[in-house]
Amino acid sequence: MKDIPTPTVTTGPLPASRKILVAGQMHDIRVPMREIAVTGEPPLTVYDSSGPYTDPEAAIDIARGLPRWRGAWLRARGEVEECDPRPVTPADNGFATGARLAPEFPVRHRPLRAKAGCAVTQLAYARAGIITPEMEYVAIRENERRSAAHARDGEPFGAEIPDLVTPEFVRREIAAGRAIIPANINHPELEPMIIGRNFKVKVNANIGNSAVTSGMEEEVEKMVWAIRWGADTVMDLSTGRNIHNIREWIIRNSPVPIGTVPMYQALEKVGGVAEDLTWEIFRDTLIEQAEQGVDYFTIHAGLRLHMIPMTAKRVTGIVSRGGSIIAKWCLHHHRESFLYEHFDEICDIARAYDVSFSLGDGLRPGSIADANDEAQFAELRTLGELTRIAWEKDCQVMIEGPGHVPMHKIRENMEEQLKHCHEAPFYTLGPLTTDIAPGYDHITSAIGAAMIGWFGTAMLCYVTPKEHLGLPDRDDVKTGVITYKLAAHAADLAKGHPGARARDDALSRARFEFRWQDQFNLGLDPDTARAMHDETLPAEAHKLAHFCSMCGPKFCSMKISHDIRAEAERQKGMQEMAGKFRETGALYVPAGTEAKG
Amino acid sequence: MKDIPTPTVTTGPLPASRKILVAGQMHDIRVPMREIAVTGEPPLTVYDSSGPYTDPEAAIDIARGLPRWRGAWLRARGEVEECDPRPVTPADNGFATGARLAPEFPVRHRPLRAKAGCAVTQLAYARAGIITPEMEYVAIRENERRSAAHARDGEPFGAEIPDLVTPEFVRREIAAGRAIIPANINHPELEPMIIGRNFKVKVNANIGNSAVTSGMEEEVEKMVWAIRWGADTVMDLSTGRNIHNIREWIIRNSPVPIGTVPMYQALEKVGGVAEDLTWEIFRDTLIEQAEQGVDYFTIHAGLRLHMIPMTAKRVTGIVSRGGSIIAKWCLHHHRESFLYEHFDEICDIARAYDVSFSLGDGLRPGSIADANDEAQFAELRTLGELTRIAWEKDCQVMIEGPGHVPMHKIRENMEEQLKHCHEAPFYTLGPLTTDIAPGYDHITSAIGAAMIGWFGTAMLCYVTPKEHLGLPDRDDVKTGVITYKLAAHAADLAKGHPGARARDDALSRARFEFRWQDQFNLGLDPDTARAMHDETLPAEAHKLAHFCSMCGPKFCSMKISHDIRAEAERQKGMQEMAGKFRETGALYVPAGTEAKG
Repeated sequence: MKDIPTPTVTTGPLPASRKILVAGQMHDIRVPMREIAVTGEPPLTVYDSSGPYTDPEAAIDIARGLPRWRGAWLRARGEVEECDPRPVTPADNGFATGARLAPEFPVRHRPLRAKAGCAVTQLAYARAGIITPEMEYVAIRENERRSAAHARDGEPFGAEIPDLVTPEFVRREIAAGRAIIPANINHPELEPMIIGRNFKVKVNANIGNSAVTSGMEEEVEKMVWAIRWGADTVMDLSTGRNIHNIREWIIRNSPVPIGTVPMYQALEKVGGVAEDLTWEIFRDTLIEQAEQGVDYFTIHAGLRLHMIPMTAKRVTGIVSRGGSIIAKWCLHHHRESFLYEHFDEICDIARAYDVSFSLGDGLRPGSIADANDEAQFAELRTLGELTRIAWEKDCQVMIEGPGHVPMHKIRENMEEQLKHCHEAPFYTLGPLTTDIAPGYDHITSAIGAAMIGWFGTAMLCYVTPKEHLGLPDRDDVKTGVITYKLAAHAADLAKGHPGARARDDALSRARFEFRWQDQFNLGLDPDTARAMHDETLPAEAHKLAHFCSMCGPKFCSMKISHDIRAEAERQKGMQEMAGKFRETGALYVPAGTEAKG
Repeated sequence: MKDIPTPTVTTGPLPASRKILVAGQMHDIRVPMREIAVTGEPPLTVYDSSGPYTDPEAAIDIARGLPRWRGAWLRARGEVEECDPRPVTPADNGFATGARLAPEFPVRHRPLRAKAGCAVTQLAYARAGIITPEMEYVAIRENERRSAAHARDGEPFGAEIPDLVTPEFVRREIAAGRAIIPANINHPELEPMIIGRNFKVKVNANIGNSAVTSGMEEEVEKMVWAIRWGADTVMDLSTGRNIHNIREWIIRNSPVPIGTVPMYQALEKVGGVAEDLTWEIFRDTLIEQAEQGVDYFTIHAGLRLHMIPMTAKRVTGIVSRGGSIIAKWCLHHHRESFLYEHFDEICDIARAYDVSFSLGDGLRPGSIADANDEAQFAELRTLGELTRIAWEKDCQVMIEGPGHVPMHKIRENMEEQLKHCHEAPFYTLGPLTTDIAPGYDHITSAIGAAMIGWFGTAMLCYVTPKEHLGLPDRDDVKTGVITYKLAAHAADLAKGHPGARARDDALSRARFEFRWQDQFNLGLDPDTARAMHDETLPAEAHKLAHFCSMCGPKFCSMKISHDIRAEAERQKGMQEMAGKFRETGALYVPAGTEAKG
């Protein structure tokens, strides 16, 4: 490692943007937002998931990790204590040795856990009437510096999005189980965020290594790249060797919640033989990951033995990786899974670190033919039962959802989830609305994602163009994140989120006024928009032009619209003119001969 | 031009595909379809819009044009006659001369028009109880060689899609105005297709030149490329010089209906000065294009003078090119447009050649803020009035729709259109569900397109990634077409189209059985799917592998699913096992101690 840190990941602000920090009123917190400069208008403040990497003032050194600013809050509560870490074993890194072993993260931190008898989850605090710094943080964050109510326009399908989010509103939503703040006490680098139907729709990006790479920078860069474009959480779905060490590098450098599927690492520990999995190995893996700071665990505890035959006539069987592993185990041992049987103990572990649950849908449909079938909904009802158990233990819960679902069956998914899972947040993959477009499944699924987000899904798990075909590369990750950000935003708009339309309106005003730079900068991906424009009109002068290459100057409707407005102004104002036109006749009749207004 | 024709456009079949021709029973017609070979299963027959270009037997020579096979049908009716063509004037090609003048199409055909007193439109024939060859053709085409009813699963929102389309069903739908077959009598190269709510959802691709190109091949290639990937109709939105000559090359080589906005050419004839447009110039342009064989005209006759002030407070004013031109003209002259005033005469021209109308939405919203506003719906009601007038004249009509519309306002667009336009087919642009993603508007709009297609829109006008930014290139055209094909297919699935799911199921079976080549070949874009797969696993052997690079062999859920099925089979069949599992208890109880089934 170098003495003078040089960022080896993508840093620097997005175009025309600067990082601003909004101070808390109840707690000593500073909530980051992104301010986009706009020509001739006030700047637009938008939600910012990108962390310190887009702050030119921040010194980035991934070998040290991000500042552990949340640490003081955690200790201040007096309910956590440092503990000796579980020793790292060769199995944790898949028995990698020598040059194949990824380097350890250079800095060691002693893990925290709840003191005996203490529940340190956001749910426990919310129920006790306590507004934590995390709660105030997300309240400020959700408001994006709005201070007044905006006009409401949308169909919320029962969601109750307030004009402004207050810390008390956050507390109530968490207490009711309708929202979660995934925030492991061992992830003090976190910038807290909230997942719930009455907040902005969020997006998760999956990353994961497959083989050992030369530097840990690459692994961290995947996360940094995903959050730069708007990923609200990141799941590390690594398999193979070095899972432990790579995850440590990721968490220490991540300002967003990190989720995992602990089963993947447990399976590595038994050499990939599902039948050899045991509760003890799984339990040990949960503690290992909880101590590292994983913020949410996908647990496929809802897949029960009697449901497996329900998949026999499916076109695509079981397509969840975790689900298929568990099903194989169940069938081999002829018993319910250790996840289901030990769910109580899993909750105890999660509670001691405030690891949230993402209850996995191991039986989600993998094709249009299998959507909304008996197996899928049987598991969903079990996830509802598990939600109650987790809530009794003060654990935060969200529920994972499909999958492949044609449009007319999407709403039923949301309705069944709300009913059977008691309004716990829904977290869906897609859903993909057709199976016939491999290579374009970010789009087949964005259609379903936007719709289910509108209906009430709290977080959308992205799908990249490589879905079903291979591992996404850097470009695929970006395409997936931007695609899902636009789907989540379309959902916010349709729900009538009071702040959502401000960005659309600002961009559309820029478009109408030929402020090209503003149009690029206000978009989700300024770089791509600018590059596409420049393909045909590269000259800087054309950034001021009152047309683009799509229609050219003579056919630019927006240019003509301006001419029309000027003409109308000349004719003493359009409103005045309106009265002079007959609505029913075929001809304009000059004022004076007018019979009616 | 060469003596021995060498195709200068993209030809050859798609992977694993061959062209088949299905003979008519009433008429001497052969309807092309595409048959995709599948390993171990019968081949899958799919709709084929690509024309002779994908037929290895066809001799393609774009300087001769496609075979004029529809000519015999037209003459057989005895209601058309050859006429002297309107002389081509320098204005028709924007006064281009010398090297700037695009070459004339080498073959001249004398135009046809209806004999005096004859109505030669499909609507007139349908009303007279006549099943034309075109009607039988589209009936066969829509069925895709299905012979039996499939299980119905969908929410059609009032659409009434039959199990199998009969020629008589087509006739009735056309007679009722619920469907159109755009088929100018001067476009005998056409492979007829139908646009209506009770048929497969169709996709239009826009092409258009901006500057003179070296060869006409490029212009024809844009059309050939778009239909190769599934465009059902193509609109030639060329502006600038050479509009007449380029259009001739396109139509003579196009097997799909060609649409235009005649106003664009009319404006070129008056040097781009909207105020100088006259009814006489416009009328002459309609005849010019009708004689060439344009199949449908976008006419913005619904934009009336009193509606213009309704756009004054819009964020993005008037964004339709045609609409803004007309609005400017109206405002300058203080009178209703010549389109509205002369709509009767426009119908007479359209009827003489069977040019269908696409009644343009000149006041469609260009931003989320302007969606579903007074101006938009006022124009829609006028389009409904014009529909009645056109129908009285035996003209075929579809109605153009928005634009930019958030998800919660999409359904209202469809409902208003059905109500006010008397179920004439709806043809929408997108709609885009948010304004904030320039560079990704094929996706923001595919969300809206899939939804409005589900609700009842008959044809979707594609949007490319370059929307708002520049002229689409070849890659953009393909991305736009594939994106819209998947949206249209998602709509067909959700409507419960009886044939739609066959392709999803075939592809999903291939996916589950690791038939990689079949998975690629059954997708909308086999080339891209294959290339993406090969990025990480290029070896041919991996096309047989029971995993991909996404999860690797150990974590492939589909592979594990097969193991599970094998295991279950070993245990005497899953169905039998099902009875041995207790649904309520926490533990599997061996048979014999079982209390209930």
